[in-house]
Amino acid sequence: MAVILRERVRFVETDAMGVAHHANYFRWFEMGRVEFLRQAGISLNELIKAGILFPITNVECKYRASARFDDNILIETEAIEFTSVKMIFNYKIFREEDRLLLANGQTQNVFTDLNSKIIRLPSEYVVKIKDLIALEN
Amino acid sequence: MAVILRERVRFVETDAMGVAHHANYFRWFEMGRVEFLRQAGISLNELIKAGILFPITNVECKYRASARFDDNILIETEAIEFTSVKMIFNYKIFREEDRLLLANGQTQNVFTDLNSKIIRLPSEYVVKIKDLIALEN
Amino acid sequence: MAVILRERVRFVETDAMGVAHHANYFRWFEMGRVEFLRQAGISLNELIKAGILFPITNVECKYRASARFDDNILIETEAIEFTSVKMIFNYKIFREEDRLLLANGQTQNVFTDLNSKIIRLPSEYVVKIKDLIALEN
Amino acid sequence: MAVILRERVRFVETDAMGVAHHANYFRWFEMGRVEFLRQAGISLNELIKAGILFPITNVECKYRASARFDDNILIETEAIEFTSVKMIFNYKIFREEDRLLLANGQTQNVFTDLNSKIIRLPSEYVVKIKDLIALEN
Repeated sequence: MAVILRERVRFVETDAMGVAHHANYFRWFEMGRVEFLRQAGISLNELIKAGILFPITNVECKYRASARFDDNILIETEAIEFTSVKMIFNYKIFREEDRLLLANGQTQNVFTDLNSKIIRLPSEYVVKIKDLIALEN
Repeated sequence: MAVILRERVRFVETDAMGVAHHANYFRWFEMGRVEFLRQAGISLNELIKAGILFPITNVECKYRASARFDDNILIETEAIEFTSVKMIFNYKIFREEDRLLLANGQTQNVFTDLNSKIIRLPSEYVVKIKDLIALEN
Repeated sequence: MAVILRERVRFVETDAMGVAHHANYFRWFEMGRVEFLRQAGISLNELIKAGILFPITNVECKYRASARFDDNILIETEAIEFTSVKMIFNYKIFREEDRLLLANGQTQNVFTDLNSKIIRLPSEYVVKIKDLIALEN
Repeated sequence: MAVILRERVRFVETDAMGVAHHANYFRWFEMGRVEFLRQAGISLNELIKAGILFPITNVECKYRASARFDDNILIETEAIEFTSVKMIFNYKIFREEDRLLLANGQTQNVFTDLNSKIIRLPSEYVVKIKDLIALEN
């Protein structure tokens, strides 16, 4: 299941080339990921309180067209792989007006304790995500 | 005593008006403040580990000329008031090339515990700052 | 008339004290300002295309309580003064859940041409804002 | 030839997990790229004035360990491919203290005119870069 979030490009997100700076796409991907997890019933605040961190280990993004100030954009987030040791998401950023694909990216998180030691995500969380992913198929 | 830090304006700090976005000045002020405290022998990491937080309560800035991408800037930081309950700093941002004053600002921090309760900064820290400030007079 | 925008605190907006970094409030104020101008029928993209820039000359903010990751916040924007030479806005940031006032700030913009020379905003724009402000009284 | 830039992690670059947010690495890569080009005698300001833009088309990063507030980091930048139609750089971020590799990434820029049309970079610039790259071999 793809979760879609609608945002508007902020002025502060532009740069001197007159377009949204490329690093912002990872901020938008993160918003999509947070929303995906929220819809599965997982709150990152809750994970942190439980002593579970979720550092990013890999990211990539291909940029196809520029987002500009005040554009409405759609952040489409899909879980590609979700296990107790990692979560891989794929993202598409579209300009809402004409559904033009602006960028396509992927991220991987792992789970660690507060001392950066790799841990397994408790199954109660994994189940929630698997339920959400199952909805789409 | 004024502590001076030299930085260069990053491309990501510009916006579609072709100049450094105004919110960045508060990032630069923070760097000046961190450097001032470091020179007094105070590490913010150490404070956090000791359970002491230092939230900002007031900021202001007057902008006189724009910083542009790749400008070398000087961040001049001065302690205006430093007690066990608050620290007030004044900042000046200069373009290095011609010493043009770009902006002038002020911030106030207080000290709290991890539950956001106002506390007094232990005197060992206050003494360090007073020693540094005394150097200038 | 106060224009209200609803946002959610992004994870990237937090810092190591576990709360939204104070510089973000100026990003939120900007979003409020952009929305206010939009409701008056003024697009900043249009201004830029017409060769009119709107640099910030003064900002200030008082912080009363911390915004945290995933908080829904309300950005309330009011025009305090709007003339052909400057626009002053006042902002209040509330936590939506309990309407707690988190911060209160003010900004002033002037109008310049592309060479940073102060200019007067053409009256067609001033009229639009005055109409919007008049709505509230 | 690898160009090395030394930076310190800013407080604003941390997030609620207590480490530098992953999107900052692309800001650091950009700083390395700007410095590399500067050492070759190419100023991005000059390119922009000449009507040449240099949008990013691909990025990726692998994160191995976290950068933390106040860490001194080294940004090592190497040109992998540099032609009149694209530039590919590789980056390594090290913690200076113990030379621990924190992250490894790659970016690709192309060249366009002000209307986003792909162009070839004039040979005067390409030559400068090739000269710098040749230095290393």
